[in-house]
Amino acid sequence: MNRYIFWSDYQNGAHPAVLSRMGKLNQTPLAGYGEDEISAAAREKLREACHCPDGEVFFLTGGTQTNAVVLDALLAPYQGVVAADSGHISVHEAGAIEYGRHKVLTVPHKDGKVTAQAVEQLCSAYWEDGNRAHMVMPGALYISQPTELGTLYTKEELTALRRVCDRYDMRLYLDGARLAYALACGLNDVYLSDLSRLCHVFYVGGTKCGALLGEAVVIPEPGLMPHFFTMVKQHGALLAKGSLLGIQFDALFTNGLYTRIGFPAIVLANQIRYCLKENGFHQPIISPTNQIFVTLSHSQQERLSETVGFGFWEKVDEDHDIIRLVTSWSTTPEMVDGLCMALETL
Amino acid sequence: MNRYIFWSDYQNGAHPAVLSRMGKLNQTPLAGYGEDEISAAAREKLREACHCPDGEVFFLTGGTQTNAVVLDALLAPYQGVVAADSGHISVHEAGAIEYGRHKVLTVPHKDGKVTAQAVEQLCSAYWEDGNRAHMVMPGALYISQPTELGTLYTKEELTALRRVCDRYDMRLYLDGARLAYALACGLNDVYLSDLSRLCHVFYVGGTKCGALLGEAVVIPEPGLMPHFFTMVKQHGALLAKGSLLGIQFDALFTNGLYTRIGFPAIVLANQIRYCLKENGFHQPIISPTNQIFVTLSHSQQERLSETVGFGFWEKVDEDHDIIRLVTSWSTTPEMVDGLCMALETL
Amino acid sequence: MNRYIFWSDYQNGAHPAVLSRMGKLNQTPLAGYGEDEISAAAREKLREACHCPDGEVFFLTGGTQTNAVVLDALLAPYQGVVAADSGHISVHEAGAIEYGRHKVLTVPHKDGKVTAQAVEQLCSAYWEDGNRAHMVMPGALYISQPTELGTLYTKEELTALRRVCDRYDMRLYLDGARLAYALACGLNDVYLSDLSRLCHVFYVGGTKCGALLGEAVVIPEPGLMPHFFTMVKQHGALLAKGSLLGIQFDALFTNGLYTRIGFPAIVLANQIRYCLKENGFHQPIISPTNQIFVTLSHSQQERLSETVGFGFWEKVDEDHDIIRLVTSWSTTPEMVDGLCMALETL
Amino acid sequence: MNRYIFWSDYQNGAHPAVLSRMGKLNQTPLAGYGEDEISAAAREKLREACHCPDGEVFFLTGGTQTNAVVLDALLAPYQGVVAADSGHISVHEAGAIEYGRHKVLTVPHKDGKVTAQAVEQLCSAYWEDGNRAHMVMPGALYISQPTELGTLYTKEELTALRRVCDRYDMRLYLDGARLAYALACGLNDVYLSDLSRLCHVFYVGGTKCGALLGEAVVIPEPGLMPHFFTMVKQHGALLAKGSLLGIQFDALFTNGLYTRIGFPAIVLANQIRYCLKENGFHQPIISPTNQIFVTLSHSQQERLSETVGFGFWEKVDEDHDIIRLVTSWSTTPEMVDGLCMALETL
Repeated sequence: MNRYIFWSDYQNGAHPAVLSRMGKLNQTPLAGYGEDEISAAAREKLREACHCPDGEVFFLTGGTQTNAVVLDALLAPYQGVVAADSGHISVHEAGAIEYGRHKVLTVPHKDGKVTAQAVEQLCSAYWEDGNRAHMVMPGALYISQPTELGTLYTKEELTALRRVCDRYDMRLYLDGARLAYALACGLNDVYLSDLSRLCHVFYVGGTKCGALLGEAVVIPEPGLMPHFFTMVKQHGALLAKGSLLGIQFDALFTNGLYTRIGFPAIVLANQIRYCLKENGFHQPIISPTNQIFVTLSHSQQERLSETVGFGFWEKVDEDHDIIRLVTSWSTTPEMVDGLCMALETL
Repeated sequence: MNRYIFWSDYQNGAHPAVLSRMGKLNQTPLAGYGEDEISAAAREKLREACHCPDGEVFFLTGGTQTNAVVLDALLAPYQGVVAADSGHISVHEAGAIEYGRHKVLTVPHKDGKVTAQAVEQLCSAYWEDGNRAHMVMPGALYISQPTELGTLYTKEELTALRRVCDRYDMRLYLDGARLAYALACGLNDVYLSDLSRLCHVFYVGGTKCGALLGEAVVIPEPGLMPHFFTMVKQHGALLAKGSLLGIQFDALFTNGLYTRIGFPAIVLANQIRYCLKENGFHQPIISPTNQIFVTLSHSQQERLSETVGFGFWEKVDEDHDIIRLVTSWSTTPEMVDGLCMALETL
Repeated sequence: MNRYIFWSDYQNGAHPAVLSRMGKLNQTPLAGYGEDEISAAAREKLREACHCPDGEVFFLTGGTQTNAVVLDALLAPYQGVVAADSGHISVHEAGAIEYGRHKVLTVPHKDGKVTAQAVEQLCSAYWEDGNRAHMVMPGALYISQPTELGTLYTKEELTALRRVCDRYDMRLYLDGARLAYALACGLNDVYLSDLSRLCHVFYVGGTKCGALLGEAVVIPEPGLMPHFFTMVKQHGALLAKGSLLGIQFDALFTNGLYTRIGFPAIVLANQIRYCLKENGFHQPIISPTNQIFVTLSHSQQERLSETVGFGFWEKVDEDHDIIRLVTSWSTTPEMVDGLCMALETL
Repeated sequence: MNRYIFWSDYQNGAHPAVLSRMGKLNQTPLAGYGEDEISAAAREKLREACHCPDGEVFFLTGGTQTNAVVLDALLAPYQGVVAADSGHISVHEAGAIEYGRHKVLTVPHKDGKVTAQAVEQLCSAYWEDGNRAHMVMPGALYISQPTELGTLYTKEELTALRRVCDRYDMRLYLDGARLAYALACGLNDVYLSDLSRLCHVFYVGGTKCGALLGEAVVIPEPGLMPHFFTMVKQHGALLAKGSLLGIQFDALFTNGLYTRIGFPAIVLANQIRYCLKENGFHQPIISPTNQIFVTLSHSQQERLSETVGFGFWEKVDEDHDIIRLVTSWSTTPEMVDGLCMALETL
């Protein structure tokens, strides 16, 4: 009997176009450390897609690594990074930011998002405090698009956040681990060119968006983080076979694949949300992207798990949990049909 | 006109058996962070190959990263690591070990190798020094097999190093970035089972030995480095799609591929060394593995570069450099014929 | 006209007995780095006073330094420290704990104190979380006695905290920057011998309790933090002229001076609190030790500042702040009379 | 029977003028963290003495701490510090610089001194290396005056070192732990004003030069290390009772005490060196300042130790060691007479 797996958006290998490009170049000798011509081409394609002709682009292997290296490069030793208390760097990165010696200064989130008001409040409290020289200075703001809860910042919200950053001389850094699912979402009004304009640094996620692995750091204004290459090496984040990342992003940014790759994930996630609603399930968090949250009792979970793979999200009470279903570029209509059938008969 | 490229052993993609296994599993959903069944199988195969049935195995992405995480886990805060002054961690890792707050205590190398005598001398000097509480305690010894210069430790030398480590309560850590080329070398008498017996930790290199990327850390005695998984995450070294590494090592350790994969590299490197000798070239460093070093004048280099890709190693004088040629699992007899022809007419 | 200064308990030099002992030994040659006989005697006196005959004692120079070094020695790299959100290490040490690469895991305080229940909740949430390997493990609990707000843990509360620590294999570390003022307080039921029994490590504060500078770290069970001396040096916290600290603690622990030194501070603080109450002032935080908090309007502050020195604590509203008055071993009845007179006519 | 102690220049308390100033201010309330008026006055006096009217001055407690904080503030994360292989930060600071994540790049010393040629060689090798992006960039040069061996840089040598630093965009940092003994030496031609002109940062040592403890960091050009105060705090190096350091430096820089305080040490050291020479002892290192090195057999050491306190420096052979005698501001002619008498009859 078939099982329909919705564990995560990193449960499968690479998009066929990515895999095929890797296969074709497998026997072509390429220079090491990302200094090859394919990586150069990929960087150029990213600059074009992001409308930042002078931008710098670096390829790293994963999200936690990218967050740790970028924030270490962005922050002075006496600075910390502001983030939502629900943010990935606050809770689920095993202290990787603190390992780089920087404090994470948390603000309460709203639907997974940081508000300009909360940042303003934290910053003004710091700058008005007579003892601030004994405190950690907020030096950067970390946000992710989509957020941990799959929600989206609007262009207006992002603009407001950038304004607060400018007011307090902070850098705005956006984690785009699942960016393709934001770009593919009908409700989204933030494009790659907006990120280039509004963020000091952001990364275009590959691992969860069709690559085997890889995240592309984009620095729209060159020179912001001098000797970043060496810092990447120092953090153990530089691949000898750097072309492996360049090749994949080259494929993802050929013919606009990256901006299309999330479409099935969004369409099918909406179908699942519709089915949940129709069948009276409680969706405690409403995300417009590729993550679906639903409250199920233990016995419902047991029955569902006979045919469907899903993830635990959070305990609600002794008998109920929130579970998470994730779609991706590799989700098929057949999988969603199988899931919905299972949900209808739960 | 063809060019024959001998830049490095990481200039190509993956061995066909590795690539094919990745392709076959591309659409199979697998659990994240290396907790999938293929990674489990790969770990089991490594334990068998290394004759350490209780050993722990972790997959990381690259050499510098692996060295940094392992040494950080092995060393107490007040300890440093002993290494050859020519060692990779001493010079070419951008301070990644110091980034983890540990000093690299260097000893002079002999043909790229650390001698038991030199380690003994450093350790006894430390332990006899009345001011040692003000100094960095040697806590681990770092060596690589083959070394930076392609030379090999004998089983006897390795045994002597382990003896010194035991005498001074130090851990012996072996970097096997190019281990397949040691195992494939006729002169080698150190097998995987010897490493399990003699090292506290070692890693079996994938990136330079047929994988796209990946290094397998082997800890023969379980429990040596508690919570290593979390430390890997904390260093930004944990892949969400961890199965990518497991799949590749599974392929490399199926039917003994890893111990055979280096054969062409060794046979063809010997052919190149023979050709160099026959044609009167000076080989300043004699390595029995897959790296060949030869002294060439600038004009010789210029002519050679018309058909051959090679790497700069070291300046000799105003007119001469040592250059490096590297073979690998992907080197073909045709490439070596082309190289030799070019050398003969230089 | 006289001014009466209540800024802090570190506004004056040393207690006369301390200063006199320093003067007497000024021309006596003493070994460096705390290896002199006076420091040895002081350590012995502390062991006696704390009822821990086998304990280890180290002298450091200040509170933030002590917290940073001790926590770095207590915690494994993958562990963080639990503290009240109002705790000194959370807010006012400029990220010194994070500089040592450890996350501060905050719990809400109650009257400045951490409750066993809050620690239990944080720890059980961590240990029950299936993703805990991606999170920072709570490895120690940080508390201070008295707290930032001058409040005191009872023996019962401390016992409960130790029980939670034991249940989750955590170390209990107590910051005694103002410990003398707890020991001198009538309401206190926690003695030095209790600290030895209930804490894994604690420090007996000198800087705020009669010394020029210095804090005495007490480790009741020897061997808990091996090579602590070297870690102190590595943190830049070792004084060449270590006897300077030993001499002062020798004086403070001769004839029980330390347990008496806080008496005037407590008696006079109570007198101030009484005067405030009698005159209808609002005391938003009630501390039984040497810190007094009172709400004053801006114009009241202005008038008070003509004769009295006090510190700003916290803004209440547009027209009111909480201000802080601190007594110490050096506060005199005349100063308090001056203060009370000023308060009565405010 | 009397013993004459020449262990170190930190074996005694404070110069009488320093102690007396401390006594006088003992009951004067002063603001915390060095923000008091005496510290302000001391900073002004240092600026005057160093001829750097706009310079910034910070007081820290000890040498290792000062080196660690200053170098951490001076260096970018990807930079290391160049130092003599005999330098204090290379060997005897327990890895405090590496604890701050920076590599110490060593050059061979000549009489304890770094030569411009050696620095030039290291820097040009780095900047000409095609792989330098994988290496630690030299970002600062660390020297001490006098050096570990008591030798002195001439103004010409210092100028040459600064020139190399400028050529390679490096900062020149001078450790003046024993600076008073350089200033008091007849052979010295480097004055405080030269240090202000030639160094980016230097520190004027207090601990070994008449203070109880304390080192004054001077930054001739303001703004070189922004938020240095917070970094001092973050390193646990900020004293609550900061006035303790200000008061001492205020005394040391009143009426030129600091430039005179080393005279007895130099005169008496010369007398000892003369006596050693007259009596045929071998002085393996010739220092013009307050450290005297002499080779003695074990039996000579035994006899000498009956009346004289000295320090072990280095083993020569099975029967001989180099021992060290140190004079200071507190050494008296009687002590030296006692020593010389003992030496004459050895």
